Formats: sequence, C-alpha cells, structure tokens
Amino acid sequence: MAAARSLVNPTSNPALERALREKLVRRQEAGGALGELEPLAVRIGLMQNTLKPRLREPQMMVFAADHGVAVDGVDFGSVRNRGTSETVRKLITNQLPLTVFARAQQMSVTVVDCGMADDPPVHDRLLLRKIAHGTRNTRVAMAMTLEQAHAAMRAGMEIGDKLRGNATVLAGVGVGAHESASLVLARLSDSPLRDLIISGPDMDTGRLTHLMAVLMAAMARHRDITEPVEVLAAFGGFEVAVMVGVILMAASKRHLLMIDGVPACAALMVASRIAPAVTDYCVFCRSHHHRGLDQALHLFSASALLEIGMEATDGTGATLAWPLVRSAAALLTEVADGEEAGALGADALDGEPEPFTPDPHEEIEMSSIFGPRLY
Amino acid sequence: MAAARSLVNPTSNPALERALREKLVRRQEAGGALGELEPLAVRIGLMQNTLKPRLREPQMMVFAADHGVAVDGVDFGSVRNRGTSETVRKLITNQLPLTVFARAQQMSVTVVDCGMADDPPVHDRLLLRKIAHGTRNTRVAMAMTLEQAHAAMRAGMEIGDKLRGNATVLAGVGVGAHESASLVLARLSDSPLRDLIISGPDMDTGRLTHLMAVLMAAMARHRDITEPVEVLAAFGGFEVAVMVGVILMAASKRHLLMIDGVPACAALMVASRIAPAVTDYCVFCRSHHHRGLDQALHLFSASALLEIGMEATDGTGATLAWPLVRSAAALLTEVADGEEAGALGADALDGEPEPFTPDPHEEIEMSSIFGPRLY
Repeated sequence: MAAARSLVNPTSNPALERALREKLVRRQEAGGALGELEPLAVRIGLMQNTLKPRLREPQMMVFAADHGVAVDGVDFGSVRNRGTSETVRKLITNQLPLTVFARAQQMSVTVVDCGMADDPPVHDRLLLRKIAHGTRNTRVAMAMTLEQAHAAMRAGMEIGDKLRGNATVLAGVGVGAHESASLVLARLSDSPLRDLIISGPDMDTGRLTHLMAVLMAAMARHRDITEPVEVLAAFGGFEVAVMVGVILMAASKRHLLMIDGVPACAALMVASRIAPAVTDYCVFCRSHHHRGLDQALHLFSASALLEIGMEATDGTGATLAWPLVRSAAALLTEVADGEEAGALGADALDGEPEPFTPDPHEEIEMSSIFGPRLY
Repeated sequence: MAAARSLVNPTSNPALERALREKLVRRQEAGGALGELEPLAVRIGLMQNTLKPRLREPQMMVFAADHGVAVDGVDFGSVRNRGTSETVRKLITNQLPLTVFARAQQMSVTVVDCGMADDPPVHDRLLLRKIAHGTRNTRVAMAMTLEQAHAAMRAGMEIGDKLRGNATVLAGVGVGAHESASLVLARLSDSPLRDLIISGPDMDTGRLTHLMAVLMAAMARHRDITEPVEVLAAFGGFEVAVMVGVILMAASKRHLLMIDGVPACAALMVASRIAPAVTDYCVFCRSHHHRGLDQALHLFSASALLEIGMEATDGTGATLAWPLVRSAAALLTEVADGEEAGALGADALDGEPEPFTPDPHEEIEMSSIFGPRLY
C-alpha cells in the first residue's frame, strides 16, 4: 500500500500560499475581514494550484448501503424511522430537503447503491455499484471480505475518475451507517467509541446501553485488526469503502471534497491512512455536538463551516455550506482589486483554473493497489 | 407615538404555528432533524401568515452616512482604512465581496445615501435620500435635529413601501457608524457601552482608551435623553434613522428583514420601541464576538445564523445566510410530503403566498407619526 502514498499531491506550496494571501489582501479593506472564508480561499487556491481557482458543477454524491449489525437493533443514525431503501426512494424522487436545497444551489444529486439490502428501482439519479446485499454483522463476523473491500474501493475510484466538475459532496446513508462508521473511526484513531456515538437529552438510556454493548462486542471481536483496509472490512460498510475510493481518486485530480457526516469522515480516515494528503482537499460542512460529528471532526483537527444543530440526512448540510465554499473561491476570481475593476464578467466561475506551476499528474495503476476487479 | 404600535401585526397565531410545525414533521423523517432551519421556517410562515411562505426577489439595502463624531478620531467600525464614499464607490462598482456574493445569490444591491459627507456619483444602484452632509458631533451637540430624524424615518418608510420582493437585508456603513449605533443601543437597552465596542487581540489600547473617552463624553452630554427618537437624534446617524423607517414599513407589509451589523441592530432597537412586533419579522445574519455584535444580538435575545468570524462590510454575511433563510422557507413549499410528491414545480418559490387567515392591513398615516416632510 506504500506506493499509494504518492497518489495525491499535497497542497503545500509556500510561494503560492503567500501569493494567494497577498491577492486576498489587495481585494479587501484589510486582511481577516472575511473570517473563515479567507483561509478557505487560500486552501482552494492551493488545491487547484492556481491564483484563480474556479469551482465548477458541484456534485452531491450520496452513498447508500445496509449494515449487518442493524439486525442487532443498532441504529441511531441519519435515517431514523425509515429504512435505507425508503431514504433512497425519497432522495431520487425529490422528497427530502437535501434534494430541494441542492437544486436551489444548482447542485446535481446522485445516489450510489453500494450495498443496499433491497434493489432500488432503476432511476437516472441512481448509480448501481452494489457489492453485496448488505454487509454481514460485524459483531459476529468480518462485515465484508477483503476482496469486497477492494472491489468497493475500486468502484469508488472509477466514480471519482468520472466525476463531473471539480467540487463534490460525499455523504453516506443507511441503517446502521453511523454506528458502523463510528467503529472504523474509533479503531483507526484509537479514540473512545462512546464519544462518537449519538447522545443527547432525547436519548433512551436502555437503547444506548444495548447499542454500546453490541458495538463494544464488535470492537472486541476484531480487537487485533488495525490495518486501515482490514479495519474497513471488519466493521464496514460498503458505502464507506466506495467513498474511500472516490476520495483517493478525486483528490488525486485536485477536486474539492465536501465531507458531510460520520460515514464520510470514516471514509476520509481510511483514505488518509493510504494517502495522507487527501485531507488537504477536504472541507467539513457541519458539526453537531449531539451526533458524534464534533468528535469525528476533532480527529482531523478540523472545524465545520456550519453549526446549526442539523441532523438531517447526511449531505443536507453541505447544500447550505456550499455558498460559503463557492464565495471563498469567488474572493480570488470574481472580486476585483483596483486595477482589475470591470474586467471580470459574470461567468468568471466557469472554465478551467489557470495553473500556477506545472502539475505533474501521476498515472494510477489501480490493480497494483486494490487487486483484480470483482464486478 | 402610541398610535404607531398598531403599525405592525404581531405574528402570534397559535393555530397557524401548530399547523406549520405539523407540516414540517410530515415532510421529514422526524421533527428537529433540520436544527435551526425548522423554527426559522415556522417564523417565516407566521410572518407571511401562510402555510406556504414564498420568498421573492431578495434585496440588499446598504444605508450609508457620515458621522460627526468621526472628527474626534472615532472609528473602529466596518469601513476600516477607507472613507464612507470610497466604500460606497466600491459597492456600486462591484468591487467588494458583498456585491459579488450577492450576485451569486440573485440578490439585488442598492446603496442609499442617507447622509454622506461627500456627494457620490450618480449610479443606478445608488438611491439619494441625503438628509444632510453628515451628522454633527454627538460629543458636543445633538447629532441631528428631531426634524431631521423624522425626515430620515419618513424617507425610510417610503423606501420600505416601495421595496421589491418580500425579503430585505438591512446594513449600515459609514465612518463612525458602529460607534454611533453603539451609543443608541447602550442608551436604549441600558447596557454597558463597553460591551458593544469593538475589542480583540489586535486592539490598540491607547486608541481604545481615547475612543471610550469620546463616547462616554457623548453619553454624559445626552444623559437625560431616553425617548427612542430623541436618542436617535442625539447619537445618530442618518443611516440608522432611515433604517428605522424601512423596518417599520417593511414589517407592516410582512417583509422578512435580515439584520446584519450593529447599525442595523440600532435601527431595529429604535423601531421596536415604536412598534414592538417588528422583531417578529427579523432574522440576524451573523455574530462576531470581537465586534460588539454578539452583545447587540443579546439585547434581542437572538442568535445569528452564521458565526464565521466575519467582520467585512455589513451585509456581506447576509449574502451567505440567505441560502439558509431561503431553504427554511423551501421546507414548507418545495419539499413534498408523501401525498404531494411530484406536484411541486421548480418555480415553487415564485408567486404570492397563500394567506392562512384574512390579514387586515392598516392604513398608515405617516404625517401623524413623523410630522410634515422636510425634503
């Protein structure tokens, strides 16, 4: 796996970073006036390796899968009170806030069936990359085989390779998805599982005790597993595994990745163990102190753009954080300084970014990393 | 002034409020999943007195004026390192982040000259409602006469009467605007002036001491003045006075008002003393703990939609908060519940809201409130 470390270019570039900061100051009354938007603008410039970053065709990708551990009555996650396939049906037929908000921001929505227990109806918003009909129960077995984990990551890399635009939201949904992802995060970060699990004033103590017992049993069963892809296979789920591949490939193509929710954080954690520089390409959309998400962000030393108490289907918060990301990039491309006034058109966000320095892009030999394809 | 209390309908309507909450729950997996967006959606429904609120043609209104107290070297406010007319010139020629971000959200920008010391060039984004070429120095005199205060409020009511759409951002700019507005807020709320004044790690202690000495002298000079419009006249400024009129009239027409910055908060404080129900129509865009804005919001027991450390020209934060406001309304109009799926078109935000109950709108006799017009 060591060869994969060079997949993703780190964004470190002191000369460009300095030039970006100077450009921001020229555009404003004083440095710092735009708060968190300024470091974000600099980061986007570094991601795209340009003084004129342009964000194009934002994509909302929702990765869905079922989790074997759910048979133990484990789910306090993002799809409360309905099953995975019901959530997916509502997503593809525009019946959730996520899709309505996404449309208002000209964001395309695609749902990926990574491993749903049911087979959803054919729909042009739905991409079929089903590895299996749900994972096995991590409490009693590996959630997936290593071959399945590799197949899912490969499927994700192919999605990442074909993504339109250069800014993508990653979100995972599925019954048990939050709990499964929490297991991955707890093991890879060596942090307490309890901090990642949902709590709050509305939490039923009996259910929480049961949930923690199931999850701690899973941790104990797989106590010796620490290698990232093996941890992923042990705890699941397929949506996390596919997102790992998407992150690796999209970051290698200098896409901006918007991480929304605990499953996406788990995928980033696995991906960052394979290629640490992927975190340079990620922004975190929202946090929520009752939902384990604060703790997940803490593992990346990251803060979120929005803190508005939202616990809706993962991805919903990203639609509201997107205007901040887009505006940060616009600071560098659309806001004129004195000399440039009037020279910028309304279409300044379209087109390709102008490279700051040559960007040697490495060819990726996927089979050398993930083995032969399974589907 | 007692007659003016009936200008604005309070939004209290328990039956509609219950119906709005029930409608939100039908649209989601569970109540509360969308955090702060849900009470905001209910509030917008109550403002428009409908189960189907629609927000149309958002307007960004920036009110500009100069302040006599600035001759004492008083300004730590929003237009650091440049004068009022330079800020206005940059606003109308699209050279500030505010206008670029506003355009990205299809928000019209209008700058109102309420009392700039200079005469800005004619421009179709600039509205001339100049009461005088700046206020007098509040440290040594009433900043404006009562007649000027009334004229400014009347100008604001006329603007409020002609506003397009039904959602308007209010922001004030001008050298000394923050300090003048802080005096108004401190006097009307009987809270410590110091809490409203800008502080932070970058603050020069000598300048702060000087600033506080000037402002405390102004407080002492006008120590006996407590009646809202007299407080406004004593401390200024013209941009606050015009915004008072806009708030009163726009709220009486059930517009949603987005309050951004300390001068807009001061205008709301004065307006709420005339017609307390105006606060029902207001949302607060951003807070900033170094900028006195947290304290100003605290006076209204309000929290802001965004906390991203932004201290740019007032109004900039509102462009980023607008998608949250718009999305909150969309929860009630665009997100379908099971039965309605597919029945809603992409243009669901256009058109007039459907009234929930008859809304008797009172005729306003402005001359009975503000006296004869001066300009």
